[in-house]
Amino acid sequence: MKPIYIGLLGLGTVGSGVVKIIKDHQDKIMHQVGCPVEIKKILVQDLKKTRSVLVENNLLTTNPKEILNDSEIDVVIEVMGGVKDTKGFLLEALRQGKHVVTANKDLMATHGSELLNVSSLNGCDLFYEASVAGGIPILRGLVDGLASDRITKMMGIVNGTTNYILTKMSKEGRAYEEVLKEAQDLGFAESDPTSDVEGLDSARKMAILATLGFSMNIALEDVLVNGISGVTEEDLHYGNQLGYTMKLIGYAHRQGEKVEVSVQPTFLANHHPLASVQNEYNAVYVYGEAVGETMFYGPGAGSLPTATAVVSDLVGVIKNLRLGVNGRSAVTPQFSKCLKNADEKFSKYFLRLHVQDEVGVFSDITSTFANFGVSFEKILQLPVEKNKIAEIVLVTHTASLNSYEKILNSLRDKKTIKEIKSSYKVEGNS
Amino acid sequence: MKPIYIGLLGLGTVGSGVVKIIKDHQDKIMHQVGCPVEIKKILVQDLKKTRSVLVENNLLTTNPKEILNDSEIDVVIEVMGGVKDTKGFLLEALRQGKHVVTANKDLMATHGSELLNVSSLNGCDLFYEASVAGGIPILRGLVDGLASDRITKMMGIVNGTTNYILTKMSKEGRAYEEVLKEAQDLGFAESDPTSDVEGLDSARKMAILATLGFSMNIALEDVLVNGISGVTEEDLHYGNQLGYTMKLIGYAHRQGEKVEVSVQPTFLANHHPLASVQNEYNAVYVYGEAVGETMFYGPGAGSLPTATAVVSDLVGVIKNLRLGVNGRSAVTPQFSKCLKNADEKFSKYFLRLHVQDEVGVFSDITSTFANFGVSFEKILQLPVEKNKIAEIVLVTHTASLNSYEKILNSLRDKKTIKEIKSSYKVEGNS
Repeated sequence: MKPIYIGLLGLGTVGSGVVKIIKDHQDKIMHQVGCPVEIKKILVQDLKKTRSVLVENNLLTTNPKEILNDSEIDVVIEVMGGVKDTKGFLLEALRQGKHVVTANKDLMATHGSELLNVSSLNGCDLFYEASVAGGIPILRGLVDGLASDRITKMMGIVNGTTNYILTKMSKEGRAYEEVLKEAQDLGFAESDPTSDVEGLDSARKMAILATLGFSMNIALEDVLVNGISGVTEEDLHYGNQLGYTMKLIGYAHRQGEKVEVSVQPTFLANHHPLASVQNEYNAVYVYGEAVGETMFYGPGAGSLPTATAVVSDLVGVIKNLRLGVNGRSAVTPQFSKCLKNADEKFSKYFLRLHVQDEVGVFSDITSTFANFGVSFEKILQLPVEKNKIAEIVLVTHTASLNSYEKILNSLRDKKTIKEIKSSYKVEGNS
Repeated sequence: MKPIYIGLLGLGTVGSGVVKIIKDHQDKIMHQVGCPVEIKKILVQDLKKTRSVLVENNLLTTNPKEILNDSEIDVVIEVMGGVKDTKGFLLEALRQGKHVVTANKDLMATHGSELLNVSSLNGCDLFYEASVAGGIPILRGLVDGLASDRITKMMGIVNGTTNYILTKMSKEGRAYEEVLKEAQDLGFAESDPTSDVEGLDSARKMAILATLGFSMNIALEDVLVNGISGVTEEDLHYGNQLGYTMKLIGYAHRQGEKVEVSVQPTFLANHHPLASVQNEYNAVYVYGEAVGETMFYGPGAGSLPTATAVVSDLVGVIKNLRLGVNGRSAVTPQFSKCLKNADEKFSKYFLRLHVQDEVGVFSDITSTFANFGVSFEKILQLPVEKNKIAEIVLVTHTASLNSYEKILNSLRDKKTIKEIKSSYKVEGNS
């Protein structure tokens, strides 16, 4: 029987993992798809580099055309990373009628919709779950499993670095800068950690997840993003006293036809399933109308987990190939994008204020909230410290973002309020 | 295009859910499988009963032969429950070349291997993940996703009733009997709760999970089972002091070619991902060699979640049907059963003793452990109460079941040890 031929772009750690898995599990994969699967060509930068996996020299090439123009190659797997050149390669592959599996979140978050369009026009599959689901190869399963359901909410801890930092800060009562430094020393954080700690990496993944889950083309710029660099150990301490754990939460919510997607440091009630996801682990919590609450938990990244996800996508592509249903994947967005306004976004909020310790200040604050129809779930008033400055911590009941922002503006104008120390979203009842 | 015809056995809450989902999501399902899907006949007990879902009267029958002998019917979905008659129906369906989807855990745990054999001989699919995965329709995704991995460990909270009871006992410091009564009043526990609280329901599900995950035919009688009816609030109290949460854990472990499967009340370190699974929720933790730790969390049961899982299985069967790869599903056990001996099973243990408050008793106990090469991770010696009886709580380091049982026997023989109050497995470092 004619094998399915694969072209592999990239032979780094993930690429090597893919080669290894396809070799080691050849029988199992053939059993599943009904024909042999063979890697025909691998694009590399350096033909002479020592590899961690054994590949025959004649498989390697530095010329992408040897893959993109080879009419025998059915599926291109992209694990080389990068955006500009890579996008060109994948567009060319799709135009040549090749199916594509990619693990590239930067590319998919920024050019995903264009690539998906081209794949659809050419009757090709473009599978990319390894891009968000490094160690949670389960998301494809989720999309399959919930094919007969309607997803209305997703919450994810989708960045290992920030979760590691918040876990350490929270458990050991240490400061952000100190823990970040340690994470860098241990290799858990990049020397330039901006993309992780400012929430961009999470935002890319949430854009991909929301696009999949809501079948709506959510771009990176549709995601409201706040990072964790401003989170202090005091915030975590007060949160802890009130029964909350801080996580950097990617939040995607659908109400009717409208959606919102954000990445923000969020206080979760301690018993929330995501609150106990620690260190570099990731998890995605999904609410489906039929199935209810489900959650998927796993390592956030790593070459073998990611390679496993890539091979699962490959198996999916080949099954579709043999069924003759490629290019009809449900992941092509079905709905037009429709984003919520600020008065359609609802949350509870944690607010920490430094105020003048004077008669009437407290009632002034509470009446400001009352004026916008927002009441409190919890109030923590702390002993007055030096300079007659009192610290107040509030947790509101559910309020619209619109009202909450007006309240913050109004508080900022008050002379008796010295400083708004911090403000975070709150999820769940502690 | 010729539709795929379905015969449905049973129209209770799950069956009604299946009918509803197939109707509501007809387009989406057709999009996925490439042809229409139609329910042709439904076996019911009473033709005249009022149904929660709208079905045409001519679809209903009380005669199973109208489904089993109808050569047009491609797939039989079994949601009627029961074992004896149901088994006969499914065997007949398979012999007639029909594919089967079932949600019946009792049947699969007791006659699964026979049914799987017959399905394999007849080139038919027999999909049954709804039987264990009521609200975690993700397990099929797991088996797909981990097709290129090797699962070595699974731990599951797979019974909602017992998890509800343990959560309440633990949080509210109440006694087992009292919480059970409340659960019964609220409809969370059956009037005869034996199957749940004695761990049999969990054992059935673990037998199914282990058979799937290890590709080895694990029968119900291969599962070591202990229920929660002996768990006391004192145990939970001491566990809590030591940083543990009690759960009824289904445990399946593979070491080399040998496996063990058990269901036992177990103290989990509080930060273990399963420790925070509360109330009636279920979760399955899976360790794969490539992917590492993953966990799937969801509602334990319920008609819509189960129906969603059934329809997902149906979609899988139809995809295979169109691929021509039915009856080759990887879930047919590939390995011969090989169970671990007691000296190949390792765990940490929690042990609570009442001892005579005398000089030398404590060192006598510790030297008994030392004689079998077992040391301690934690010791809690409590103030002497009345009658000069002291309470001692120990947590061991990892020990073989063999050694641990010998230690227990040796302790039982000592006059100074008044009573072995309780003994549980311990997982994780608190």
